[in-house]
Amino acid sequence: MRIALVAPSCTLKREAADAVDAIVRERGDCALFIHPQCYLSEGHFAGPDRERLAALREVMADPSIDVVWFARGGYGSNRIATAALADLPDAARTKSYMGYSDAGFLLAGMHKAGLRVAWGPMPQDVLRQGGDAAVKRALDWLVREDLKSLEPDLNGPAMAFNLTVLSNLLGTSLEPDLSGVELLIEDVSEHLYAIDRTMFHLTSSENVRRIARLRLGRVGDILPNDVDFGSDELDIVQDWCARSGVPFAGRADIGHDARNKVVPFRR
Amino acid sequence: MRIALVAPSCTLKREAADAVDAIVRERGDCALFIHPQCYLSEGHFAGPDRERLAALREVMADPSIDVVWFARGGYGSNRIATAALADLPDAARTKSYMGYSDAGFLLAGMHKAGLRVAWGPMPQDVLRQGGDAAVKRALDWLVREDLKSLEPDLNGPAMAFNLTVLSNLLGTSLEPDLSGVELLIEDVSEHLYAIDRTMFHLTSSENVRRIARLRLGRVGDILPNDVDFGSDELDIVQDWCARSGVPFAGRADIGHDARNKVVPFRR
Repeated sequence: MRIALVAPSCTLKREAADAVDAIVRERGDCALFIHPQCYLSEGHFAGPDRERLAALREVMADPSIDVVWFARGGYGSNRIATAALADLPDAARTKSYMGYSDAGFLLAGMHKAGLRVAWGPMPQDVLRQGGDAAVKRALDWLVREDLKSLEPDLNGPAMAFNLTVLSNLLGTSLEPDLSGVELLIEDVSEHLYAIDRTMFHLTSSENVRRIARLRLGRVGDILPNDVDFGSDELDIVQDWCARSGVPFAGRADIGHDARNKVVPFRR
Repeated sequence: MRIALVAPSCTLKREAADAVDAIVRERGDCALFIHPQCYLSEGHFAGPDRERLAALREVMADPSIDVVWFARGGYGSNRIATAALADLPDAARTKSYMGYSDAGFLLAGMHKAGLRVAWGPMPQDVLRQGGDAAVKRALDWLVREDLKSLEPDLNGPAMAFNLTVLSNLLGTSLEPDLSGVELLIEDVSEHLYAIDRTMFHLTSSENVRRIARLRLGRVGDILPNDVDFGSDELDIVQDWCARSGVPFAGRADIGHDARNKVVPFRR
């Protein structure tokens, strides 16, 4: 099992790569290829678009690679996602892909293109408190599809997204068919008014209205409002589900934290 | 000329209302009706949805009102916009409407419904430095269509939006037909990575790709990035215009500031 790390968004920290490499060596059931592009830096991004795209295309096309693991989120994968999916080589279809947060742009487009993708912890998460467990959970899924890595209440076909990322890919070429899907959402570092506004946008979508049900993961690091918003993230999400006729099915065990679980997009 | 103030988003400050009232009395060419709903407060909003909606519906249906002037932005008009536009009374069609920022949700839906709307300064702007001039500019347009109030480079049919608001109304029932329109955008209090992400979303829209051209107003109070983003708001907007084939036509004289100009949606 050969796992390639590339960084379509922001730069991977070397100490994170070293820590993940140590975990992988100790396991002995997989091998890591850390693409040097992971350490590039240009402004906000892990190198210019062309370098991030070339690294991603390279590992997608490499038949010796079984898994492409997105090194971290941040922002930027949307800038190369459409080009990454053009003229897919056969080798791209025989491997699986994992990440979350900003990598959701890629997960969406890749799933739509028929590739095998999963929401799950990323290498940079090893730097979180308890991050070792997150990385092991991800690897347990990638290497041997350990069911203990999965979000515990999955029921039928599911997808997981950062709410803001999902809102920003609606109407783009990356938007997947959501019909009949259990949709899990989470968010981080947003104001509650922005969560409310994004839920308006999300639940106005005809595609989103065709999901089987919605569950809410953790909304972390909520930014302060000038005055108390008047309701919390659970109220907000339930309210928009009720307004739009989307069945709300409770909480989900995903989020920008070390407890984040795996959600394969096809089950 | 009778101008009604309602607050579909956040609460109007009394000192702003008093200052605008004084300006109106001194002019003597119009009269102000400040709906008491403007001063309501519930959490983030100028009263609960039902009160904000009722006040808006009331002034829309009142044949003695010539202009509905949105008191201020913030967030929340999207929560009542669809209901505000249902079963429009005849009196709603003989008046005009003005505001900007969050009020863009209403401007979009109202324009789509055939009402006469304009982007322009709002009463709460009187509290900005130089805000008297902004309010006078708005009133000069509302009362006597003074061309000096207009954004100076308008050329053909135009619309103006806060970028984030416009992104959040794409795909909703409020989304207007943008074909052939000169689109002016601005934003405030966002990170550059969010501006970049929102421009990706905006310029991926087939509707947006049918505009005649795009101009960029001021992007104020940009929030700090962890590392320097690597480009500025002008680079970002030009880049996404180039990628999507949307003609970029330079800067626009709009923004969240006292210099903000008027952009009528039909000319």
